[in-house]
Amino acid sequence: MKKSLMAVALVGAFAGVAHAQTAVQIYGTIDAGLQKRSNQTLSIGKRASNTLGFKGTEDLGNGLKALFQLEIRYEPDTGTNESGGRPLFQGQSRVGLQGDFGMVRIGRGLTPYQETVGAFEPFHALPHQAGFYTDLAVAGYTSAPLDPSVNSNNRWANAFWYNSPVVNGFQVNTAIATKENNGGPAIGTQYPVGAQASANPFSATATYNNGPAAVMLGYERNAVESKVMSIGATFNVTPELKLLALATRHKQDNIRFTLPAGSGPRTKAWVLGANYTMGPGKILAGYGRKEPDNSFETKQMSLGYEYSLSKRTYVYADASRKDGPQTQATRNVDAKINFYTIGVNHSF
Amino acid sequence: MKKSLMAVALVGAFAGVAHAQTAVQIYGTIDAGLQKRSNQTLSIGKRASNTLGFKGTEDLGNGLKALFQLEIRYEPDTGTNESGGRPLFQGQSRVGLQGDFGMVRIGRGLTPYQETVGAFEPFHALPHQAGFYTDLAVAGYTSAPLDPSVNSNNRWANAFWYNSPVVNGFQVNTAIATKENNGGPAIGTQYPVGAQASANPFSATATYNNGPAAVMLGYERNAVESKVMSIGATFNVTPELKLLALATRHKQDNIRFTLPAGSGPRTKAWVLGANYTMGPGKILAGYGRKEPDNSFETKQMSLGYEYSLSKRTYVYADASRKDGPQTQATRNVDAKINFYTIGVNHSF
Amino acid sequence: MKKSLMAVALVGAFAGVAHAQTAVQIYGTIDAGLQKRSNQTLSIGKRASNTLGFKGTEDLGNGLKALFQLEIRYEPDTGTNESGGRPLFQGQSRVGLQGDFGMVRIGRGLTPYQETVGAFEPFHALPHQAGFYTDLAVAGYTSAPLDPSVNSNNRWANAFWYNSPVVNGFQVNTAIATKENNGGPAIGTQYPVGAQASANPFSATATYNNGPAAVMLGYERNAVESKVMSIGATFNVTPELKLLALATRHKQDNIRFTLPAGSGPRTKAWVLGANYTMGPGKILAGYGRKEPDNSFETKQMSLGYEYSLSKRTYVYADASRKDGPQTQATRNVDAKINFYTIGVNHSF
Repeated sequence: MKKSLMAVALVGAFAGVAHAQTAVQIYGTIDAGLQKRSNQTLSIGKRASNTLGFKGTEDLGNGLKALFQLEIRYEPDTGTNESGGRPLFQGQSRVGLQGDFGMVRIGRGLTPYQETVGAFEPFHALPHQAGFYTDLAVAGYTSAPLDPSVNSNNRWANAFWYNSPVVNGFQVNTAIATKENNGGPAIGTQYPVGAQASANPFSATATYNNGPAAVMLGYERNAVESKVMSIGATFNVTPELKLLALATRHKQDNIRFTLPAGSGPRTKAWVLGANYTMGPGKILAGYGRKEPDNSFETKQMSLGYEYSLSKRTYVYADASRKDGPQTQATRNVDAKINFYTIGVNHSF
Repeated sequence: MKKSLMAVALVGAFAGVAHAQTAVQIYGTIDAGLQKRSNQTLSIGKRASNTLGFKGTEDLGNGLKALFQLEIRYEPDTGTNESGGRPLFQGQSRVGLQGDFGMVRIGRGLTPYQETVGAFEPFHALPHQAGFYTDLAVAGYTSAPLDPSVNSNNRWANAFWYNSPVVNGFQVNTAIATKENNGGPAIGTQYPVGAQASANPFSATATYNNGPAAVMLGYERNAVESKVMSIGATFNVTPELKLLALATRHKQDNIRFTLPAGSGPRTKAWVLGANYTMGPGKILAGYGRKEPDNSFETKQMSLGYEYSLSKRTYVYADASRKDGPQTQATRNVDAKINFYTIGVNHSF
Repeated sequence: MKKSLMAVALVGAFAGVAHAQTAVQIYGTIDAGLQKRSNQTLSIGKRASNTLGFKGTEDLGNGLKALFQLEIRYEPDTGTNESGGRPLFQGQSRVGLQGDFGMVRIGRGLTPYQETVGAFEPFHALPHQAGFYTDLAVAGYTSAPLDPSVNSNNRWANAFWYNSPVVNGFQVNTAIATKENNGGPAIGTQYPVGAQASANPFSATATYNNGPAAVMLGYERNAVESKVMSIGATFNVTPELKLLALATRHKQDNIRFTLPAGSGPRTKAWVLGANYTMGPGKILAGYGRKEPDNSFETKQMSLGYEYSLSKRTYVYADASRKDGPQTQATRNVDAKINFYTIGVNHSF
């Protein structure tokens, strides 16, 4: 044997990964369009989340698979990481195992509650202002109150996921996070900068699907012990027409901090919607309300249209009207905001 | 049907993207070498921009294609994003459609003016100190004065591009940006922090190419209403010898802010150059001047040599002398700077 | 010829890279698990470094190859760049040439000293608290004292590498860095913010491998003229059992700054270990000491187990006890820290 240790290492670094090209799948989305919001200049922005992802699976035998997924999120209008400062792999960074028992994963990603709720609101979980996903669908709840403020509200770092297999149409999805501080700001007096969670964040959903109809129950408790609960249903009246309904209760009355303005200790919300498919076209329609105790209610009405140019590319147009407190910037202002967008969405 | 909604979603997440490997192309450049600049220590740096990109097209039928391109820029000597803090996809992040009508794209990228000018200066748009691209070729003009100061000077966020098809050798390339603020610093009193553009930035070029000769006209107006205009030509005297000429006028007299030291309300600049090919070798030579009203002029003379080791790899050596104000750091100093570099450029 | 310059450029941008998919290899690692450290909450973290890399080679003929490697490092538990703020390509960003003469590379990467030492400690260069790599193996030495403080301690930016070929089992690996400042903080009075290196950082190792046995000698001098020297050996007693030994001297007595608390002008350290393979399982065991002049010593004992589920995936469990000053946070505290972890490591 004539090769030294270092030679082996260096050869390995450049030659030993012929498997890589078959093991890693690159995928993603780029979505950009024109947007006009009341009292704001015409802007270019996104409707869907924009991703560039890397993922793969490895067959371990006996029906067992190892899997990983790393997903960059970005803003196509400025080229930055999502929102300018979110983690590189904002979409997710998880590794796990899948088998007859279901799937276990560890890392960072969407909570089971947030992931499931997205399938029961009429704008297919778009984080866009015309959709209901990030506000009314979850009654203003945030999954990650102790994360850095630029982070998204529906993901957990430092967590462990379990998804059951589907048995007779039933599935259970759960996650639990550690109490680790993730570098977020102070929340009231109970959670100063650097505070750990006062309880392990926990999230669970149960879904049942018999083909035309699907129902779900979801529950989650975050790091500051706020709780949220949702019940949702979808029903395909015909193959073209799908109706969706979602009701949510958000409870933050056990937290010893001053509630954000515009929110109450308990908030109720509901969203009704419909999707109607006409050949390559699809109409999305929804109406919802969010009603905090002791504060202003929010009403939202949205209408969208998607037209597929191919399996991977569609153009869209949305119109939406939101009446009431809706973002940090407009809290306490009972503003009526009209919002319009047209754009293109391309998957790869 | 035994599968629930979530099961479908999870299977989709790991199995439904067999197309991905054919759809996404990975490409890039890595360029690094030794550099010596008057009064500075020997350093390692780049000559060309360094990229790691992801792009793809999708055939939509009827001659129509959807396309996207996401391009990371980085510094190979330190491993950071370009300049340490530029957006992840500093190169570009655009999605669009291409057909008989030409190409439309939306997102962030090089302006048509900046892209076209780069083809008419003798160092093929290198951002390097030995080249003319970022200073003399554009008479000190910046495309993005309201962007964060670390950003590059030749790109637009929040813009829309149109490139015509080539008809009888003619092509037109245009872009228009929204007035959105992109998080830049204050510029004088008219543009405080967070200010929007006072007019929509607009850029256009027209090119004509009959084979041995090419000419171009370029115009651009930025977010603070500075204007730049260039006329350029290239001529292949023989297949080996190409001559290049470029003249530029930069006008910033309608801006209500104090001009940067070392610049005047109007600046004229011109660059003359030649490229001479000898088998795998290529000589690049150029001379140029930048003459602001009421301020110091800058003269630059550069000589470069590139030697191809293959289709994708070449080594290079440059020598350059710049006499006059040239960067923010040396403004108002009538310094003579000698600059030398040798290095390697590899494309993949 | 009907195509203009711009048309050529744009076509090139979308069509001319059919070679890319064969040229670029994507590879990486994702490693995550549960960790419990004395006096800290249960957390999710990594044991191995997590990478997502892009690399390739190009045959230049005559046995010469061009090569590049760009390696993202990240934290799977939070999705951020490594340690939240390290360079995008923290792993490495290098371009070079390889041939009969060996390999030359330029850019940023692990120093030869740090790379070689990693092969002679029993936890295969894991940066993990149960391993010896980042502290006892190098006697607390840092390769990059003038780098930003978030950066890792074993890499050089702005450097040039040479690895010899392996001749009769012998190999030499060297690197030299420029004196460029890399944006780090002040180090004592001699090295204020923005200070350049007072000497060119230099690193060299020599290795000899005759099959069952390997030995190495390593030396490095960093930007503040601290010096480190190691001698190491490994011996395969049987194919299953490998013994490892490493001794290191770290000298920082020629530096005119106040030494960090818990370190002395000279530090001695040694690590003894064994790896024992049992089918798909492997036991890692090590014991080491670090003894600074005039300060507290550190003792560490670690035991690990790795079980391969496949060629690319293994699970692991470690237990470690460290007695003495060991991190910035615990310096001057003669703390006994127990550390346990279980997790999964997947390569792709």
